[in-house]
Amino acid sequence: MNKVNLSEKLALFSEHWHPHIVGELNGQHVKLAKIKGAFDWHHHAAEDELFLVVSGTMDLELRDQTVTLEEGEFFIVPRGVEHRPVAHEECHILLFEPASTRNTGNITNERTRDQLDRI
Amino acid sequence: MNKVNLSEKLALFSEHWHPHIVGELNGQHVKLAKIKGAFDWHHHAAEDELFLVVSGTMDLELRDQTVTLEEGEFFIVPRGVEHRPVAHEECHILLFEPASTRNTGNITNERTRDQLDRI
Repeated sequence: MNKVNLSEKLALFSEHWHPHIVGELNGQHVKLAKIKGAFDWHHHAAEDELFLVVSGTMDLELRDQTVTLEEGEFFIVPRGVEHRPVAHEECHILLFEPASTRNTGNITNERTRDQLDRI
Repeated sequence: MNKVNLSEKLALFSEHWHPHIVGELNGQHVKLAKIKGAFDWHHHAAEDELFLVVSGTMDLELRDQTVTLEEGEFFIVPRGVEHRPVAHEECHILLFEPASTRNTGNITNERTRDQLDRI
């Protein structure tokens, strides 16, 4: 039962594409991540995923469109929808998704993180 | 499948203590609200509730402590825990909570809103 300051939590890590858990409620996780460059195309079979930009700009590439998100904007990727997050400069994001959500969804590679740190 | 700009959505309403739904995922709602003054003490029997301050300052009064939240800070009130949001000046907040969550929880009064608008 402590409040969470997003900036303070973001200052605790620097690695890109490495989400950290900062809150849990109703079986959902609140995560923070720093992203830069292009991630991998993937989808989550059973989880809708919310991306909220805390600072910076990101592109959320979908197969039929690219959604550009600025600070204070969010987008919900429905389950099953392929997506690829891309950030041309470092961008800080908040994710809200079921605790079961794996960062690389249906694919497994060197960026897959099955265990996330809580900070 | 549209992005949501928090500031643009907040500009669409002005009434205090009237949450509006701006997103839905995994059975949860993302809501925005403008608050000012003191709300009513209440709890949610089966829902954890996240308060994130988008702008301004709010106090989240609990029976044993008061948590002051500034912009960019959030707090999760666990199910069953009595709380009272208070804002001395108008404050804009984002709520994450199950779609079943009623704004006044276990109490019913003139502020109770069983149907919320989606904007």
